[in-house]
Amino acid sequence: MSVLVVGSVALDTVETPAGKREEILGGSATYFSCACSYFTPVNLVAVVGEDFSPDDRRLLEERDVDLAGLQVSPGKTFRWGGSYRGDMNEARTDFTDLNVFEDFHPRIPPSYRESEYVFLANIEPGLQLEVLAQIEKPRLVVGDTMNLWIDLKPERVREVVSHLDLFIFNDAEARQLTGEVSLKKAAGEILKLGPKGVVIKKGEHGAILFSREEIFCAPALPMDRIVDPTGAGDSFAGGLVGYLAREGKTDFVSLRRAVIYGSVMASFNVEDFSLNRLRNLSRDDIEKRYQRFQNLTSF
Amino acid sequence: MSVLVVGSVALDTVETPAGKREEILGGSATYFSCACSYFTPVNLVAVVGEDFSPDDRRLLEERDVDLAGLQVSPGKTFRWGGSYRGDMNEARTDFTDLNVFEDFHPRIPPSYRESEYVFLANIEPGLQLEVLAQIEKPRLVVGDTMNLWIDLKPERVREVVSHLDLFIFNDAEARQLTGEVSLKKAAGEILKLGPKGVVIKKGEHGAILFSREEIFCAPALPMDRIVDPTGAGDSFAGGLVGYLAREGKTDFVSLRRAVIYGSVMASFNVEDFSLNRLRNLSRDDIEKRYQRFQNLTSF
Repeated sequence: MSVLVVGSVALDTVETPAGKREEILGGSATYFSCACSYFTPVNLVAVVGEDFSPDDRRLLEERDVDLAGLQVSPGKTFRWGGSYRGDMNEARTDFTDLNVFEDFHPRIPPSYRESEYVFLANIEPGLQLEVLAQIEKPRLVVGDTMNLWIDLKPERVREVVSHLDLFIFNDAEARQLTGEVSLKKAAGEILKLGPKGVVIKKGEHGAILFSREEIFCAPALPMDRIVDPTGAGDSFAGGLVGYLAREGKTDFVSLRRAVIYGSVMASFNVEDFSLNRLRNLSRDDIEKRYQRFQNLTSF
Repeated sequence: MSVLVVGSVALDTVETPAGKREEILGGSATYFSCACSYFTPVNLVAVVGEDFSPDDRRLLEERDVDLAGLQVSPGKTFRWGGSYRGDMNEARTDFTDLNVFEDFHPRIPPSYRESEYVFLANIEPGLQLEVLAQIEKPRLVVGDTMNLWIDLKPERVREVVSHLDLFIFNDAEARQLTGEVSLKKAAGEILKLGPKGVVIKKGEHGAILFSREEIFCAPALPMDRIVDPTGAGDSFAGGLVGYLAREGKTDFVSLRRAVIYGSVMASFNVEDFSLNRLRNLSRDDIEKRYQRFQNLTSF
């Protein structure tokens, strides 16, 4: 079953201990789509400017991402600059040039409206609500957010969360949104808002999935070197939602496996800048790494 | 098979968000012994002062810990004060009164010398070497250390590590001792010194076990509330070494399970101050929690 994603397509300028890259393809919807595309067809809704390059568009087309929902607006593509020093779990934002994103309002093409699996990538929560208003009742709606929106619009974030089946965010955001130090308590607070599940991402420490009854802990793959963590969270979501859509399942056992497929895709993503690693995987690469996670956790 | 532990017995003054306790029983060897005692007999070597109370001694006796190696010296028992604020993974040391510990030299009673499983709890690395000089070739020597010794005597710490079969320390110490940001790389550097295995503890994020060929990631149990993290690392080591000694095994599959038993004992320990929780467990409590770790990680 196909997946609808609404989020950002961006040109990133990124600096990590491994080097600096300027204006490389990025954005939450881009990373998500590329990771998800290994599991199931993806329908993308986002906006770019007239400067968006044919090469970058081709990358998504080669992954069979449907671009009927990719609006091209007069002006420049959204740009983000960030750097990682020491702690690879958190980016320092150097600049944000919204450009065409400033006036973006997601329009879901009619052909996308029956998507049964939906991912609301990190965009302004009001826009996430606009998406929800345009879609038929899907089987599974998964959403993400970021610290900026929790700072500026916590009530709007909570409103979005109340419409989600599964909410994915990171440990710092969980503590920020709920005021709870314990991640278990934070997840409990989120579950009270409505979602059936919560995934708290912890960067190099893995991720924890909570439902009202169960908890599942997934490690991150221990690595010699992280080249660029940008997009790891969106790649994680891409693997997670992609797996569920491919299997057509949303039970807790499937969610456990989905979290591992998410971790697999995130582990590939951080091995190189931009989508350099994520664009060139085989099904076998993915299955082999899934097995590594099994070996990493079984006792 | 019995386990020999050499470390500290202390009176701790601890402040956490859950409250403050003064002069409560603590110390690396104490926590280790109590946790280990659920698996196998423990022989303890440490020193206390003449002020060490009969109640505290009785607690260890009730857990069947052999105290033939507990020296009583003129003077006061070692005292440590620490507090936890916000980050429950790291204590701030408020004071350290070495007292009788200042002139401590471990003497291993003849009856202990054939212990096949040995744990060198966190004490000055020169003292750890004195222990190694007094014991016959044991089957498994496991050791711990702390940031203080890595700061003051990194070469001595490395010398101790070169004699160990398994080295247990935490993530900050791993980075401090090796200069590596990647825990996988840090573990690789430690393995080059000689040990067959390395366990890196990550507090609420669990622990990772490394050998030259394999990696095993264990989560920590997600909890609503941590009352007092003091002694969690030593309780972890107690469960780990105790399980291996009980089973009489040191292969990697047994090490995986041992890490989980360690995590089980640590998870009990943090539920209350001092040894209040750890002293009153049943075999069934421990097995049930082991099952919870299975449910937490299987996919």
